Amino acid sequence: MTGTTGLPMAVPAPGLPARVRIHEVGARDGLQNESAVVPTEVKAEFIHRLAAAGLTTIEATSFVHPKWVPQLADAEQLFPRLSDIAGVDLPVLVPNARGLARATELGVGRVAVFGSATESFAKANLNRTVDESLAMFDPVVAQAREHGMHVRGYLSMCFGDPWEGPVPVAQVVRVAKALMDLGCDELSLGDTIGVATPGHVTALLAALGEAGVATEAIGVHFHDTYGQALANTYAALQCGVSTVDASAGGLGGCPFAKSATGNLATEDLVWMLRGLGIETGVDLDRLVVTSNWMADRLGRPSPSRTVRALTHKG
Amino acid sequence: MTGTTGLPMAVPAPGLPARVRIHEVGARDGLQNESAVVPTEVKAEFIHRLAAAGLTTIEATSFVHPKWVPQLADAEQLFPRLSDIAGVDLPVLVPNARGLARATELGVGRVAVFGSATESFAKANLNRTVDESLAMFDPVVAQAREHGMHVRGYLSMCFGDPWEGPVPVAQVVRVAKALMDLGCDELSLGDTIGVATPGHVTALLAALGEAGVATEAIGVHFHDTYGQALANTYAALQCGVSTVDASAGGLGGCPFAKSATGNLATEDLVWMLRGLGIETGVDLDRLVVTSNWMADRLGRPSPSRTVRALTHKG
Repeated sequence: MTGTTGLPMAVPAPGLPARVRIHEVGARDGLQNESAVVPTEVKAEFIHRLAAAGLTTIEATSFVHPKWVPQLADAEQLFPRLSDIAGVDLPVLVPNARGLARATELGVGRVAVFGSATESFAKANLNRTVDESLAMFDPVVAQAREHGMHVRGYLSMCFGDPWEGPVPVAQVVRVAKALMDLGCDELSLGDTIGVATPGHVTALLAALGEAGVATEAIGVHFHDTYGQALANTYAALQCGVSTVDASAGGLGGCPFAKSATGNLATEDLVWMLRGLGIETGVDLDRLVVTSNWMADRLGRPSPSRTVRALTHKG
Repeated sequence: MTGTTGLPMAVPAPGLPARVRIHEVGARDGLQNESAVVPTEVKAEFIHRLAAAGLTTIEATSFVHPKWVPQLADAEQLFPRLSDIAGVDLPVLVPNARGLARATELGVGRVAVFGSATESFAKANLNRTVDESLAMFDPVVAQAREHGMHVRGYLSMCFGDPWEGPVPVAQVVRVAKALMDLGCDELSLGDTIGVATPGHVTALLAALGEAGVATEAIGVHFHDTYGQALANTYAALQCGVSTVDASAGGLGGCPFAKSATGNLATEDLVWMLRGLGIETGVDLDRLVVTSNWMADRLGRPSPSRTVRALTHKG
């Protein structure tokens, strides 16, 4: 890769975590938001390649009703194909008790529930109020923990909502605390429509800290719809956050489509973390090869700037 | 614009400047790096539209030999067409004494010289060593100041160089100080190949401060080649920098081309600054209209994520 030898130069910034755990969401959040339905064997190979590139938390699929997410209707067929992957956490989404039962049968070790900070999105996505959705999650989280599973609580629309506009920090804190009180091991704060900016991120994380939510339990999930994801990530790192969600190659966020949701690309994140001297365990070159391989399967180039830059330099 | 009413929510972060001056480079750095040569009247209308959108520093063109930059060969024809723009600084690039003479005849009030932090780029771009190029700038800066002009010193390759790899901070500080000692009023620190990351930015700005270069005299010029430009900008704001270079619509950085240089898009910057509650004076909606207008002239969509998001929402 001409011109990138020794780059980015590693220059740590004060007060940042020494290591970041990347929660790779390309195979789930990414493929769920692609228009094409990817064959099960391609998904399995993708996840194997992600693991080989050094990612240690790879969200694999969602045990949601196939009617709602046809892209992930093959969860039962996919998950057993991953059993040879060692030393990697493979969480799955479970929307409700039925999804948890399906996941339990397959020996899943980590699950995630998917909540909303706003009433509008709770209604649109779960057909429930926020409190009704929390009541639905309550037995799911309890049962998962009884089975010894690690439980992640996703929280959508933490910064803005397409129907409600800006989302007050206090409202997010209330639902975040409720999810932790249900027994979630960790939270993922989602900027679902990509409208967060660094001061807002800092304010929300400070408020969560004041409310007693441990920073170690918080992950951040930024979308790059307005190009802000990496700046927001840097602000979160400065607040002590060390779990960051990202999608290999920026999957799920096609910048050419009207529906662009714009997941933060794992490669752009890894480039920044390398520059900051923060360990991730990820082999960036190998990850770029994987994202280009997946882009070929989808028939369009990766929207990740780092993927493009390193590919063109090759 | 459905879904963005009141967004981004303005949440200031501690210690940032209250106001940022955007140094708009789309008409010069942007168009210089586009393959198409834009007609003079289109350039003139572009700059008028940028001014109408609230930008107050708009780099207009370059008085370089037409052989080197055919895209800007019309500097003499363009500049007089801007004389009706009031209250806006319209700096131009002058590579040498001949360029300064041409600019002086036209009544230019602000000029910029274009230096390099590395020997390789000085050789490639100026066919001189770094010190020889400083010697060439010396009388240019002195004469410009005699004419009462404001002088900006661009400094390229401040973070990495395609031939030399990482660029030591001390090397950049030496050339930066030399440019200030020549009499430059301000510097623009260029990450020409886009390899800066936030810790590196912070370290360079700290070193410049220790060397006695006033933060008020420093602008930053980031490229988004690896998606890092906005995170780097946020780091620079935290160091007190309040002048940021950006290119309307991300002009000059086509992400689809192998030669992608990837200027930071002004709209992505304005979105972040709005979210941080930092004043810029820019009307974002009007700027997006302008960038789409220019994209139509160039025959391809803007690579700016904010332009795309706001356009698709329209």
